[in-house]
Amino acid sequence: MSRVRVIKIGGNVVDNPEALSAFLDDFAAIEGKKILIHGGGKEATRLSKALDIPTTMIDGRRVTSAETLKVVTMVYAGLINKRIVSMLQSRGVNALGLSGADGNLIPATRRNPEPVDFGYVGDIDPLRVSDALLAKLLDDGFVPVICAICHDGAGTLLNCNADSVALAIATAVARRLPASLTFCFEKRGVLLNADDDNSVIPLVTPAIFEQLKSEGKVSGGMLPKLSNALKGVAQGIASVNICHASEVTLPEAGTIIKL
Amino acid sequence: MSRVRVIKIGGNVVDNPEALSAFLDDFAAIEGKKILIHGGGKEATRLSKALDIPTTMIDGRRVTSAETLKVVTMVYAGLINKRIVSMLQSRGVNALGLSGADGNLIPATRRNPEPVDFGYVGDIDPLRVSDALLAKLLDDGFVPVICAICHDGAGTLLNCNADSVALAIATAVARRLPASLTFCFEKRGVLLNADDDNSVIPLVTPAIFEQLKSEGKVSGGMLPKLSNALKGVAQGIASVNICHASEVTLPEAGTIIKL
Repeated sequence: MSRVRVIKIGGNVVDNPEALSAFLDDFAAIEGKKILIHGGGKEATRLSKALDIPTTMIDGRRVTSAETLKVVTMVYAGLINKRIVSMLQSRGVNALGLSGADGNLIPATRRNPEPVDFGYVGDIDPLRVSDALLAKLLDDGFVPVICAICHDGAGTLLNCNADSVALAIATAVARRLPASLTFCFEKRGVLLNADDDNSVIPLVTPAIFEQLKSEGKVSGGMLPKLSNALKGVAQGIASVNICHASEVTLPEAGTIIKL
Repeated sequence: MSRVRVIKIGGNVVDNPEALSAFLDDFAAIEGKKILIHGGGKEATRLSKALDIPTTMIDGRRVTSAETLKVVTMVYAGLINKRIVSMLQSRGVNALGLSGADGNLIPATRRNPEPVDFGYVGDIDPLRVSDALLAKLLDDGFVPVICAICHDGAGTLLNCNADSVALAIATAVARRLPASLTFCFEKRGVLLNADDDNSVIPLVTPAIFEQLKSEGKVSGGMLPKLSNALKGVAQGIASVNICHASEVTLPEAGTIIKL
């Protein structure tokens, strides 16, 4: 059976109309079952600014006040999700947009305010993600388009990390069907040298990851991405890769993460 | 077989946290299959104002520029839809939020710019609404929560009238299952005397409607509401009623519209 492809696109693709359109052309061309997870942080930051709501980032995560929660809910679940859904529909893809609250797809837990109070930010346990809903939608021929707004089940929406949502969704799908996960971003993969686009690390295993870390060769945002990807393959995702958005049709482009 | 209840709430309920919470308690208590359609115009007007985007209404319809389309997409499909979904989930209702673009639920046609250019405003043909998707979601135990953002199938979102969406959804459901439609608003029904809350007209048939019109006893926003309701019953909706949001659990509260 062919794999379900779970694909995550970040703010740089979402934020650029030409890049988004080109990406969605490619995404539409991918055959078989597929799921798209999207971010949208740049547009949220712009809207916050226009509304005089301060944006505070700590370790790359958005501190989410009640006002910021409204902004990200509007931008991620409304503007960007429906824009992508309508663009995919026009490409013949039967996209259906979801937040983590819809159908109780992704129950989340508000993050402990100690040591850092991130406000309305949630963490996700992949075991609580509804693999039943995902399987049903895929079986019915829909292409789920998922944003990172989740909920606590008690009536409060929570802003979650889109990479974590992608990982949790792929892990949940993998409980029922073979699944692969692709993180698309603006580089051709995880680079050994940030200034050299041709220095893509082709393969990361747990042993290679430890070596890269000990040699100081990966750092910043790549550390949690690789650590999460390794967690995902350990939990049953057949393969994870990190590549440029323009290479999404190639399931093994960029950096492959395997056990 | 019991009827599927299609219920529409307007901006006055959506905009008031206490009223919305009380309404959703009642909605959660309704047994059987049900669908909620919501507006949210007041919040859209507030966000437009905060962003210095002018709001222009013609005959009660919002003129929708490209900027206004972004605002209503954010507010209706994002903020309000996900707020209602999470509030229903906390009440044990397996709500799933949808715009008309999701799963191609509601294809719409951009309104002719002559004689009045409403911008990105769409009109709906109930025959094109996906009764298959609605039936599937209801069969699977979901409670669809639908906003009035639709699409043209060519990648453009369109702002539609929430009353028209409710009518089209109920008409589509009625092709497969017995369905009733309830419009909830801030009055106890269609009033003979706008200043007297006890002057509810109990029954409107096509003949009574003609008489009320000729006597000048209904006017303003009630004319299209009643005319649409009569269209709905002519197209197979078992009954339509117009009532106060607090009476939603009573399927025959307020003004009943029948053939």
